[in-house]
Amino acid sequence: MDTQKFSNGPCPIGRALDLVGDGWSMLILRDAGYGLARFDQFRTSLGIAPNILARRLKALTTAGLLERRPYSEHPPRDEYVISPAGRDFLPVLAALGAWGRKHNGGGCALSYLQDENSGGQVEPMVIDAVTGAPIGSRPLKLVTPDAA
Amino acid sequence: MDTQKFSNGPCPIGRALDLVGDGWSMLILRDAGYGLARFDQFRTSLGIAPNILARRLKALTTAGLLERRPYSEHPPRDEYVISPAGRDFLPVLAALGAWGRKHNGGGCALSYLQDENSGGQVEPMVIDAVTGAPIGSRPLKLVTPDAA
Repeated sequence: MDTQKFSNGPCPIGRALDLVGDGWSMLILRDAGYGLARFDQFRTSLGIAPNILARRLKALTTAGLLERRPYSEHPPRDEYVISPAGRDFLPVLAALGAWGRKHNGGGCALSYLQDENSGGQVEPMVIDAVTGAPIGSRPLKLVTPDAA
Repeated sequence: MDTQKFSNGPCPIGRALDLVGDGWSMLILRDAGYGLARFDQFRTSLGIAPNILARRLKALTTAGLLERRPYSEHPPRDEYVISPAGRDFLPVLAALGAWGRKHNGGGCALSYLQDENSGGQVEPMVIDAVTGAPIGSRPLKLVTPDAA
């Protein structure tokens, strides 16, 4: 992708995709949200080629979604822990998962998020925090400010 | 990505990414949500190479997020209109945009969604529709059913 165009553009969706705009990055974040942190943990979970995983971990760290921390001095080894910005991305993944469940859910029983307090299955939904209305239920207009 | 692994796996996030797991696809859907439908409209909006755009439009149509419709017989020309499944994806993009605004929003004024009724700026947020609690505000557990 032409990252220059989207990283500096007015669209916040493009801004997000500039940092985390591919499937592997999102799955790495998903796993980091579940507590995975070490290279081999991600590799085993995702079945991802080591060179691709190394590149994505570096990019996510540079983008501030993961934080690199040493866990061993001899030999020197780092792990990748989800950052506050990365944790903030997990609700987006929950909404993405709700869509995947609804529109590509056939063939086997799917994993789901359970509310630990109520024991019930979580149903992620995107609302407007101001009005409380689900996004898509009211007419919305895109406003693009004039370039300064 | 190893689409076979994720398209048939238990994780609904992987299921979603199997259909729409790259930045271009999401930006095409964003534009289709704003009413763009013709090849040249997407090309102009995104600055995307024609061969990549053609491939993404075909994949999104096969995945059921866009619907291909003829708009001219002589010469034969098709347009790509967002489907109900594609429209269902727009709230995910709204949540993605809210994250982009918060975590990669510097440098220029960003576009935003306005509620046409209230005139206010929309603040997309992901909640659990069952409890009403924002995702991330309560402890959640991932449950993966045993393979049947």
